[in-house]
Parts: sequence; structure tokens; C-alpha cells
Amino acid sequence: MLDILDAVLAARAAGGRAVLAVVAATWSSSPRPVGSAMAVLQDGTALGSVTGGCVEGDVLARATDLLAEAADDADGQLAARAELVHYGVSDEDALAVGLPCGGALDVLIRPLDDALAGQLQALAAARARGRAARLELALPGGGVVQVAVEPPEELVVAGAVALADALAAQAALLGMRTAVVDARAAFATPRRLPSADEVVVDWPHRWLVAQAAAGRVGRRTSLVVLTHDARFDLPLLEVALRLDLRYVGAMGSRRTVAGRREQLRARGVTEEELTRLHAPVGLDLGGSSPAEVALSIAAELVAVRHGRGGAPLRDTSGALHGSAADGLSG
Amino acid sequence: MLDILDAVLAARAAGGRAVLAVVAATWSSSPRPVGSAMAVLQDGTALGSVTGGCVEGDVLARATDLLAEAADDADGQLAARAELVHYGVSDEDALAVGLPCGGALDVLIRPLDDALAGQLQALAAARARGRAARLELALPGGGVVQVAVEPPEELVVAGAVALADALAAQAALLGMRTAVVDARAAFATPRRLPSADEVVVDWPHRWLVAQAAAGRVGRRTSLVVLTHDARFDLPLLEVALRLDLRYVGAMGSRRTVAGRREQLRARGVTEEELTRLHAPVGLDLGGSSPAEVALSIAAELVAVRHGRGGAPLRDTSGALHGSAADGLSG
Repeated sequence: MLDILDAVLAARAAGGRAVLAVVAATWSSSPRPVGSAMAVLQDGTALGSVTGGCVEGDVLARATDLLAEAADDADGQLAARAELVHYGVSDEDALAVGLPCGGALDVLIRPLDDALAGQLQALAAARARGRAARLELALPGGGVVQVAVEPPEELVVAGAVALADALAAQAALLGMRTAVVDARAAFATPRRLPSADEVVVDWPHRWLVAQAAAGRVGRRTSLVVLTHDARFDLPLLEVALRLDLRYVGAMGSRRTVAGRREQLRARGVTEEELTRLHAPVGLDLGGSSPAEVALSIAAELVAVRHGRGGAPLRDTSGALHGSAADGLSG
Repeated sequence: MLDILDAVLAARAAGGRAVLAVVAATWSSSPRPVGSAMAVLQDGTALGSVTGGCVEGDVLARATDLLAEAADDADGQLAARAELVHYGVSDEDALAVGLPCGGALDVLIRPLDDALAGQLQALAAARARGRAARLELALPGGGVVQVAVEPPEELVVAGAVALADALAAQAALLGMRTAVVDARAAFATPRRLPSADEVVVDWPHRWLVAQAAAGRVGRRTSLVVLTHDARFDLPLLEVALRLDLRYVGAMGSRRTVAGRREQLRARGVTEEELTRLHAPVGLDLGGSSPAEVALSIAAELVAVRHGRGGAPLRDTSGALHGSAADGLSG
């Protein structure tokens, strides 16, 4: 839902009608989670998706019918026209018909009226302020489907090198907010780092200690150290590895990494704390441009989030997404 | 160089002076290749980089001196003030001083004069038109350093699903141009796919055959099939696996993938041709949002480009970037 929120509100503000389709329940390996949404606008444009493309054609046809009906309707009655549609097929029959991704799902298809538009605006406002918010949509026949806005996860990048901006661009695609911290004022500038949400001129370890003391770092914070300089790296990693962060990665050649581990041990960092350190940072993709290295770091961050190993999926077995219990999906 | 081209030309157009620093030669594990560049603008801003942050401070100091001298100089004499600086340190001493990434490099540091600005404009124009171009910079003491513009690599995405736009956004970060092809006009719209460079309403296999006949696909073309529908997938993959493309990946659950392989064999696709197919597509990162799945596909594309396996670098040994012969770098 959140991926199409701005586009739907813009279409509404321009006076257009729209129908919203929201995933209300999933079974087995349905590819997109509850709350995923698609919108069909008055001009026939379809935004977003409810699966990986399996049932969107049927949703489009139903939404187009609802749009036509809505044109003849008093705005206050639109909510009553909501319908709940069940889609499903066994994995075995997947290639033959229907839902090749496998699984099954319920989709709420509902015209956008003033009340719902107001709720969507509240969600968009909460997201813009980085606050949590929740929308509940009533289902025909009882029950609700919830759409939640979470505050964005944060990426802290130490070192205003060229790679820092490439990494901030990757983080933005993942919905994360990026702060770049560097003590050198000539390098830590918004002009040099246009993709960063915040650029801080400070010693990274001093800044991180202050952020931690203010309760602003934790399990929703990831840190990537690009400073390449023991004067900055060592005090920063000593602090960071003792905080319960989502991810800590540090750049460096294999020799730098080995030497840095020794120096961290000498400063009293324990073996358990050192297991939290991803260094050399990133997955083994082999690229050397800032864009390629940023991609390898973002990929490791997502793999760590889901406890995965990064190998090509065609060489592995088991579930493609999420935890093993989620089953197979496409 | 190409990453900072637009920003340098904009600063020049606004009447500002600038000094350019370009990697002219590298040895061992220097982290960025020949042609990588950093610019220091009149206001002290540093754009781009020549290493991963190891020597940029010294380059900044030298460039700042040159900027001050250039203020008193006739524009025509600026090229004569170019200097070639050697940076280097053994990997063993890496953590102690100098170049913690290891390796050594020569950096050409040269004020930006009218002649060089004109050459940079020609490079930018070639890139904007998708054409190849080359700039040669003379080095003090003889020799040249070359900066080349290559036409962008192309990503073709079959299937105008939500993931297609997320994939186009990833491709853009890698400097690739994306065309999304889908036979369904309601889905294949620029509004739904704002990150795509081109949106084509056509049967994907028919379009690919026409592109191939016109000589527009080859080793600089990658294809990702998201259509999830055997009517589209099978004829498209049958064509694509017989072209010498950079990368061919196809979405689908493990069961869909196994069934599709059988159907491709039944259509006469050979085992050797099937080894070119990356399916299920992507690296094993475990994410299921469009942004996470797009990241896993882009990561596989880069890993295939460099012949790498995608495992976390802290669990592997050998060179971090490029081919094994490139040595270690950070």
C-alpha cells in the first residue's frame, strides 16, 4: 500500500476516481504480504500490485467495473460496494492456470471515497514525519485488514567517501534513512552526498555515543564504516559492536580487516562482539565501482536481516523468501 | 570521472574554477581504476574520489593550492601547472600510515581550463546520446591517461509488474538503461514504471526477435523475465537463451522453474542453452518486497558479470574485487 500512497493521493487531489485493491489474507506461498495494494485510476492506469503479476488482470477488470458504477453513485455509498475476492490454485497446477506463483489470497476491492482518502492522507503524513501509524479497512462479512507505517530504519555511514553516496542511494530504495558522519568538513557536505538524508560533521564515534545516549540507535540502526583510518575506525567499532545494532559492516582489504580485529581485541572487544562485525563488508559480487560495491553492501544488509547466505537461488534449495516456514513463492 | 562530470560542468558553467584529480596509473590493490576522478571546486567542495578515501585529504590540499594559484593566472597557462603525484605504501604498513587500502597509484592533478572543459562537455554529450567517446589527458613527463564513455548496458524486463520498476531503479544506479516490455497496455505505462527509460507494449518474444534482427541486443543486454505466465515466458526464453546475452534470469517458484525447464526442453532448448538461465532469479537474500527482490536480482547480475558466488566476503578468501589477478583491495 505504502508504495502507491503518494500516486493515489495525487490522482485523488486532481479530482480523479480510483479503486483500491488490498491483500487481506494470504495462504501458503502467495508472493506479496497482507496490506500490499494495487490501485486502478479513472484513466485505467493500474499502480502497484497484489501478487507478482498473477491475478492483476482479473483485479483490473473488477476494479474497472467498480469505477464505472462509482461514476453513477453518491460518494457516501461507495464503501458499501467493496468486495472480497478469493484467488487460489495449488502449486501443482501452477503453470496451467491462475496463480503461477502458487498459494492463495483474499483481495479487498473497494472504491476510494472521501473517508478512505482522509485515512490515506493521515498515513502519508505519518510516514513523512517518520512516525508510526496504522490504517484498518473493514472487510465485507466482518474482520479488518491492517496497513501499518513504521518509522524508517536508519543507515549510518561513517566516512564521506564517494561510496557513501552510492550506499545512501541503495538505502533509499530499501526505504531506509541515511546519515553520513565524517569529521572532515571539506568532505562531509550535502553537495557531495546528495542521496544522504543527513550529513554530520563530527568524529563518528563521538556522534554515535551521543546518539546512543539519546536512545536514537538500536535494532533499527545499521552502521557501515568506510573511513579506512584506524584513528576513526577503532573507537567507532569499539562502541558500535557493544550496541545491539541491526548490522555493523566495515570496509577494508583482508589485511586491514585482520589487523583491525587484532587491534579491537587489544582494546578489550570480546570474540562474541567481533562476530557481529561484517568485514570485509558486502557479498562477493566482484564489482569495484562505487555503485557495485554499494550494491554488495546493501545485499549483505538484506541477507543478514533475513538470515540468508547470498548464494545464487538456482544453486540453493528451500524457500525463496522470508523464513523457511513461509514456503515457496515466486 | 563520469560520476562527477555533470557536477563539474555545472560548477564551471556557473563561473567557478575547479581542479581535477584523475587516477593515471595503479599498482597492486589500489581500490579505484585508472580514470577515476575527484574535483575540487572553488568553494572547497570535493566531489568524487581517487581511492576509497585514503589519499583524498592530500589531493584536496594540493588542489586547494592550485586553485589559489589559478586565481592569479592567465587561463591559457593553467594546463602547464598540472602535476603527477605518486602515492603508495606496502600492504604490511597499511594500518599505520598512508594508503590503508593497500597498493599504489599516480594521480594527475590539473586545473580545469577552457580546453579541458570543452573536452569534458564532449564526453557528457556522447554519454547523453548513448555513444562511445574517449578523452586523453597528457601527463607531465609524457604519456596520457584515457577516460572512456561506453554506451550504457541495457536491461530488458519482460512483465510490467511492480517489481519491474524497482528493478529499473536498481539498473539506473548501475548506469544501465531499462526497457520494460509487456503485451498488456493497462500495465505497460510510464506512469506505472517511472524508473524505466522505455516502456513497450508488445509481446516480449516478438519484440526481442525484432530487436535481435536489428542488431540491438547482444553481450551488453541483460534480460529478466517477470511475466509469470507460460504463454509469454516460454516463447521469450526459447528466443533469449539462443542469443548471446550478458544475463538471462526468470522469476518463479521452484516448482514453476522446474516445470518451465521441462517445457523448454520439450521445445528443443538444449541443456547447454538451459545453463544460461538463472532461475529462480536472484541471490539468496530472503527479502520479499519489490525493493528487496530487485536488489537480489541486481546483485546476481553483477556477480555473474564478475564470475562471483555471492557469499559474504567475510566467509570467503581471495580478491575482494574484479578477477583474482587484481589482488586485494578495500
